[in-house]
Amino acid sequence: MEKERLILVTNDDSVNAKGIHALVEMAQQFGKVVVVAPDKPQSGMGHAITINDPLRLVSTNLFHGIEAYACSGTPVDCVKLGIYEVLHRKPDYVFSGINHGENSSTNVLYSGTMSAAIEGAMEGIPSIGFSLADFDSDADFTAVQHFGAKIVQKLIESPLNKSVCLNVNVPKLKQTSIQGIQICKQAHAYWADRFERRKDQFGRDYFWLTGEFADVDQRPDTDLQALKNGFVSVVPTHFDLTAYDTLQQMKNWNL
Amino acid sequence: MEKERLILVTNDDSVNAKGIHALVEMAQQFGKVVVVAPDKPQSGMGHAITINDPLRLVSTNLFHGIEAYACSGTPVDCVKLGIYEVLHRKPDYVFSGINHGENSSTNVLYSGTMSAAIEGAMEGIPSIGFSLADFDSDADFTAVQHFGAKIVQKLIESPLNKSVCLNVNVPKLKQTSIQGIQICKQAHAYWADRFERRKDQFGRDYFWLTGEFADVDQRPDTDLQALKNGFVSVVPTHFDLTAYDTLQQMKNWNL
Repeated sequence: MEKERLILVTNDDSVNAKGIHALVEMAQQFGKVVVVAPDKPQSGMGHAITINDPLRLVSTNLFHGIEAYACSGTPVDCVKLGIYEVLHRKPDYVFSGINHGENSSTNVLYSGTMSAAIEGAMEGIPSIGFSLADFDSDADFTAVQHFGAKIVQKLIESPLNKSVCLNVNVPKLKQTSIQGIQICKQAHAYWADRFERRKDQFGRDYFWLTGEFADVDQRPDTDLQALKNGFVSVVPTHFDLTAYDTLQQMKNWNL
Repeated sequence: MEKERLILVTNDDSVNAKGIHALVEMAQQFGKVVVVAPDKPQSGMGHAITINDPLRLVSTNLFHGIEAYACSGTPVDCVKLGIYEVLHRKPDYVFSGINHGENSSTNVLYSGTMSAAIEGAMEGIPSIGFSLADFDSDADFTAVQHFGAKIVQKLIESPLNKSVCLNVNVPKLKQTSIQGIQICKQAHAYWADRFERRKDQFGRDYFWLTGEFADVDQRPDTDLQALKNGFVSVVPTHFDLTAYDTLQQMKNWNL
């Protein structure tokens, strides 16, 4: 008998977010699901890990009939604890999300959701991060479930290099209005950051991060282009940050 | 008259760390230095940003005669605040470090020091992260100052693509024992993570992250190889995480 697939599910919006419940529902059609996810929102935590504080892991019955834990750490901590202290083996897949908000382009670096998927890839586990371009806590995740399941099915049939994870983003559109799925490059874009400077009750300055996202990528086939055109974007994503083009150029440096 | 170079200096070990003081000393020979660095240790924070809390920026005279601020946020927050609220323009360079501890190989993803340099690159600013393979709070940074200055000088003479930053690691050796500088690839290695499970005063479990670092990269010219052989490693590092090889393979997916 074929061994049942084991799928570790996490996110960065916490065990209480609607998105992770939608992801668990979708993932269950592919195997046994175990959840290890943050006990509080961890958006923007990037690839942070907790090294100077102890970590807590508390069993939760928020996911009816599914083994699930709320973790005091970051999304990457959740993946590490899930593998080494909950499952005691590598799961067959790591799914992260569904994020309330887009994680396209360079947002992949800030995203706790995508960093969890990248951590899965660093462990050699096929991993996918799912995000919906809708920050609403009551967002409708059915389109992500629909297109996400198609992508998971394809990944099962056609395995990829295990050092690569997938960054899946779904536009905020009705499922029937979505044009299809596009395989994309990560767009080169950046946050033209601004801060709101305010005064606290003692007259001291404090700052809130805000900003405008600027797409500066003229290439075709970027994830931002795909989303703008109403497609689901899928970017194969790895953790080798070496700039190989520049490496060649620097070989002439005499140091 | 040539405008003086403006250099933003940050780190992840905080304004109190010996390493950032050594970096400021080295950087001053290349231009005017302004420091914006965390007010407390932020190791392992990766590319985290603070989005749900206000940020504080407090002027400090820890760096004699140098404009400097302690920031309540992460290293990436420091770069953003430094550019948009302190300098009100892009500096000519961002230097991060000198980190107490190595940031070679895949540690680049967890490292607050390197994430600050990557954030600099995302802003189109030539940036360098410096790390010494010595966790001692009183480590000797003179070798990093010596080799670091050579690398900065070379980068000034031979500018690189501005979307690329440099990851410089120096082995824990006497300066005279260091073999030279090597331009490298990021090694493929991973943490075989383990957690220490302990009981608190109420009998509840908690976990400390620990682990063994495993180099699984057989290629020549990796940063881990260079360091093992007594060289300073320099890896050109970018923020495009697209796995282009896999992208080609996935173009055959019919979705």
